[in-house]
Amino acid sequence: MDRARLSLNQYTVRPWPLAQAIDACARHGIPSIAIWRDKLAELGRERARIALRDAGLRVSSLCRGGFFPAATESERAARIDDTRRALEDAAALGAPALVLVCGPPPPGVSLADARAMVEAGIAALIPEAERIGVRLAIEPLHPMMIAERSVITTLGEANDMADRLASSAVGVIADVYHIFWDPNVRRELARAGERIAGFHLSDWTTPRGDVTADRAMIGDGIIDLAGLALDVERAGYRGDVEIEILNERAWTGDLDTWLATALERYAAIAARPLTFRAR
Amino acid sequence: MDRARLSLNQYTVRPWPLAQAIDACARHGIPSIAIWRDKLAELGRERARIALRDAGLRVSSLCRGGFFPAATESERAARIDDTRRALEDAAALGAPALVLVCGPPPPGVSLADARAMVEAGIAALIPEAERIGVRLAIEPLHPMMIAERSVITTLGEANDMADRLASSAVGVIADVYHIFWDPNVRRELARAGERIAGFHLSDWTTPRGDVTADRAMIGDGIIDLAGLALDVERAGYRGDVEIEILNERAWTGDLDTWLATALERYAAIAARPLTFRAR
Repeated sequence: MDRARLSLNQYTVRPWPLAQAIDACARHGIPSIAIWRDKLAELGRERARIALRDAGLRVSSLCRGGFFPAATESERAARIDDTRRALEDAAALGAPALVLVCGPPPPGVSLADARAMVEAGIAALIPEAERIGVRLAIEPLHPMMIAERSVITTLGEANDMADRLASSAVGVIADVYHIFWDPNVRRELARAGERIAGFHLSDWTTPRGDVTADRAMIGDGIIDLAGLALDVERAGYRGDVEIEILNERAWTGDLDTWLATALERYAAIAARPLTFRAR
Repeated sequence: MDRARLSLNQYTVRPWPLAQAIDACARHGIPSIAIWRDKLAELGRERARIALRDAGLRVSSLCRGGFFPAATESERAARIDDTRRALEDAAALGAPALVLVCGPPPPGVSLADARAMVEAGIAALIPEAERIGVRLAIEPLHPMMIAERSVITTLGEANDMADRLASSAVGVIADVYHIFWDPNVRRELARAGERIAGFHLSDWTTPRGDVTADRAMIGDGIIDLAGLALDVERAGYRGDVEIEILNERAWTGDLDTWLATALERYAAIAARPLTFRAR
């Protein structure tokens, strides 16, 4: 978790346009950035590519593809096509992974059927992902997001699906906010191993408003960040570590201070010896 | 799920005192009630016992004991003593189960250590539970409640713990709101089998405010209630089915209408043939 592996997920400072987020990375000495597609579309892919190159920034991931379950076959095909375009964007930016937010169940569709639609959607994209060298990174989301964001709620389920899909182009994202509560998290991180395509940091306090954007500042919650970082390290992950703190209140405040605090907290965790962890 | 097995969890109509909830059961032809300790304390145990007897009501469960993790040994002992008193209350009321809300991690205590404290607390109470014939019913709570309510978040974890504790006095509660999202829920219900000590109904829409009291009316959410009811039936559960819909907005509205709606929705599910279920 040294500074050389640090990435800023741009939704941490969501109100800023991409160009401003890139500037902030340069200003704060952050070597990598995770980009969201709405922000990419605002700037344009080619201009973004040039701005990233000029700033000397890596792209740790592109967020996001997915939302595979839909009521009709044509709508499901449209979601796959959209995710294919995201794969192409990721490749153009040099991002090693496309984050997949897999999608909620459509009205009247069972969780089991929705999960099968997710798997079918990813399967359809594997040839393209293998060809262009971008990983389809399944991100299990916290179970409280199942009705609006994702039927894939545990790392175990993501690992099971990746086992069945049997492609090196299928990965998983380890986002502490989504997985820390799981009694099997250590076992599933070890099982994920080389499949881990991203490690995202924030912290957990019980959300009070919008469950998607009330994540806590690193160090303000109950997550054993250093312990999970060690588990991810032991599993073999050597990629970038994203700071991804989606927080509506922060977005209405001073983003420079928010970012500076996140960097201080990250440095404090990175400075801790990782040879020990609490049970 | 016929009417003879219906129980009203009194927090569905939380503003009502126990005597009024008992009256409502009699008025609506509900044969069983789940009682909360704060309401029991207001009325007094002996008066409650008489009121229940006069109304001819069963008590499906007493809610709640638990909150085992604490920073000091003396505080942990106090939590165990408190839960022992709850066991005695449950026995006095003829309730077959005491619902255990296991408790969050105390500040600075890891999830693993907190989980060990839960297990130690339950273990300490087994002799008393066996003696008086009340089951210690571990209720896994939705993972979004881990910081304030329970480190036990899945039925699998509750089953693992019950396996280790190896006593017929240890059960588990299957509350659809807490477990429906779990990809392993069907497997874990089957595994729980005779251990199931309660089946609680409400529905899931994403909470917008207090995550503990924003449960949806039966039928208004995405939970496959009929499917889970069949799973619980197949697992061998033949006890009462509690309507337990904690909802802050409902509590400020017309509780008679709220209850009547819940009974209609329950009847609609109970009337569905359970020989089929969606995948």
